[in-house]
Amino acid sequence: MALYVQKYGGTSVGSIEKIQYVTEKILKTRSEGHEVVVVVSAMGKETDRLLDLARNMTPEPDPRELDVLVSTGEQVSIALLAISLIARGCPARSYTGSQVKILTSDVYNKARILHIDEEFIRQDLANGKVVIVAGFQGVDPGNNITTLGRGGSDTTAVALAALLHADECLIYTDVNGIYTADPRIVPSARRLDRITFEEVLELSSLGSKVINNRAVQFAGKYKVPVRVLSTFSEDTGTLISFEDKNMEQPIVSGVTFDADEAKLTIRKVPDRAGIGSTILGPVSDANIVVDMIIQNTAADGTIDFTFTVNKNDFSQAKHILEKSAHLLGAEEVLGDEKIVKVSIVGVGMRSHAGIATTMFKALANEGISIQLISTSEIKVSVVIEEKYLELAVRALHTAFGLDVKASPKSLLV
Amino acid sequence: MALYVQKYGGTSVGSIEKIQYVTEKILKTRSEGHEVVVVVSAMGKETDRLLDLARNMTPEPDPRELDVLVSTGEQVSIALLAISLIARGCPARSYTGSQVKILTSDVYNKARILHIDEEFIRQDLANGKVVIVAGFQGVDPGNNITTLGRGGSDTTAVALAALLHADECLIYTDVNGIYTADPRIVPSARRLDRITFEEVLELSSLGSKVINNRAVQFAGKYKVPVRVLSTFSEDTGTLISFEDKNMEQPIVSGVTFDADEAKLTIRKVPDRAGIGSTILGPVSDANIVVDMIIQNTAADGTIDFTFTVNKNDFSQAKHILEKSAHLLGAEEVLGDEKIVKVSIVGVGMRSHAGIATTMFKALANEGISIQLISTSEIKVSVVIEEKYLELAVRALHTAFGLDVKASPKSLLV
Repeated sequence: MALYVQKYGGTSVGSIEKIQYVTEKILKTRSEGHEVVVVVSAMGKETDRLLDLARNMTPEPDPRELDVLVSTGEQVSIALLAISLIARGCPARSYTGSQVKILTSDVYNKARILHIDEEFIRQDLANGKVVIVAGFQGVDPGNNITTLGRGGSDTTAVALAALLHADECLIYTDVNGIYTADPRIVPSARRLDRITFEEVLELSSLGSKVINNRAVQFAGKYKVPVRVLSTFSEDTGTLISFEDKNMEQPIVSGVTFDADEAKLTIRKVPDRAGIGSTILGPVSDANIVVDMIIQNTAADGTIDFTFTVNKNDFSQAKHILEKSAHLLGAEEVLGDEKIVKVSIVGVGMRSHAGIATTMFKALANEGISIQLISTSEIKVSVVIEEKYLELAVRALHTAFGLDVKASPKSLLV
Repeated sequence: MALYVQKYGGTSVGSIEKIQYVTEKILKTRSEGHEVVVVVSAMGKETDRLLDLARNMTPEPDPRELDVLVSTGEQVSIALLAISLIARGCPARSYTGSQVKILTSDVYNKARILHIDEEFIRQDLANGKVVIVAGFQGVDPGNNITTLGRGGSDTTAVALAALLHADECLIYTDVNGIYTADPRIVPSARRLDRITFEEVLELSSLGSKVINNRAVQFAGKYKVPVRVLSTFSEDTGTLISFEDKNMEQPIVSGVTFDADEAKLTIRKVPDRAGIGSTILGPVSDANIVVDMIIQNTAADGTIDFTFTVNKNDFSQAKHILEKSAHLLGAEEVLGDEKIVKVSIVGVGMRSHAGIATTMFKALANEGISIQLISTSEIKVSVVIEEKYLELAVRALHTAFGLDVKASPKSLLV
């Protein structure tokens, strides 16, 4: 007998029919003799509908009351799923974040889980019940309703799995796992059977939004095996777990990209001590997150300073930089929104030399120029012209041997 | 400075615009220097929408989970109203039934309030905040969410007013008070300035659904002055209070009717001790509520036994009665669904003789036969043919001097 935490996202519980489908999945797990704790999100677009109600009233709704409002979304889902299970003869009991209780920090709209009581859950499991917990929500020490921010239901599920020492935390969604690359761009992309927490963190912060980043960090910290899989298929999905020394690791696990960044360059700034922070200071003061940073020193004692920001922040950052350029006596500010960041990720890189070289060569073979480079222990990212996005991703996918093999067997992996 | 509990029903908070309108009403009360505790219902048809979701899943949804589901309706309303008030610069704080907390019995779907904590409410009022409480809901001693049944928000409001010794409990709805008769039937019906708790109880149990019956009982018990008035007019509505010995009471306060009853007669039952309970026993065993009961004894030692039930229960009751008729050797069972009960209500009756006589004469003048009669201290009810409903109500309204006077002034009262 195993204990599973199953998390069903908004698309998985988006209608009465889908909730009944999820009911059958839970019954199946139970019929195999396992215990089940279920975490659910709000139905489909319910959270957006509630947010729209509030924003139709005022552009900046009170954060405390916004959490009171949106937390009703998950409460509807847990009740309907419990009603559905009980109607099928399966004992079940729903819990709001307040009832469990899931104690969080007192930061509305983006609270963090501090503690979860396990008493009621253990008791219900011992009594043969399916326990259904509202994702995304909790209460602060003052008993105010809080929410964990977008993707918070994943975090609720992983936290519960950690607390209960669950055998696995299953994140049911509308894709059947994590791929070596976006299948819409690389038709030969493969669904990975296994991947490490670190690789997922790099993949998801780079734009592959299959599972919430904080949930993955949590899972890594508390060593919770997490499986990402589709509600509506029998595929076993992708298991996110630890690096297995006995397993042969592929050098590169996947190719990913981020088309949401834009590049800014301030040219010919007279160099002096601390020039980097002088340039970036006003940008961070405006709460703009800077990603890649490159500094080139020229022979004439000036520097070119380049960095990337999210496209949404581009005009504001450019404006700030133009002011700085004037103050610092720089020659000009250049901006480029037509760029994309492409990355290769893999824990295998740690023990393999020459990965970056292979990457650069593969891109050069396609005539693609690299504008910026950044590397970490398990990833190499490059910024290239936007128009080369698909070509670059496919070339790298092939260069690192990720393409799906021709045999029908591996297609099913 | 007074303390008011204001309750806004579903039609008063049915849209963003209406919530903003309610916001202005609350701000107005505040600007006059008063403290306000607000109780709100779910928006418009939200409760029905949620019930439909559950019933589309199963005809008999689990009662515990049904309360988890429908209680989200009021939670949405309190949050939106708080957001609206805060956006207008008015400090406000919302509370779910669980947060207040409103402790109830552990009967789902129709719980009764056992206790309400006043700590948070007092604290918020002292800090100049408008306190917004979700109507209709509470938690049982096991921290399960409960609801109070239809109309439960009125009870929440009255219970809070009693707890806080509020100066008045204002029930805002879509009609501007309690009338001497249904204005759709009697165009000359007048809105009453004042009425006693007992009269309202008789009026509302007889079909004038302006305010929940349990709420009125509660108000009477704890001596909470309650005012029923319209959200969308400046009319002062009807004050429900105590019998004022110094005030001249009208003999009859109103004429009301109930068209939801049907009549059953079992004819020529051989009489014997306890025959009444022998006949009604199987009916009550089927959970059918019996209203008026008449027994006639004939010279031949048989009786005719007549009673009324809700139309929804008519066929079942008739079926039960036919079985009894066979067992008891009765001659036949007669049923009549085309009846209506018309009543006159007034505390003034206590000290006036001949009220029933006036009533019967007024009906006789119109050629209306009376089929059944029942009386209590403050009301007289008669059952007549359904087709005479409007004629009877208008005749009685005139006979007891309730018609609105010709002067424009009294029209504005």
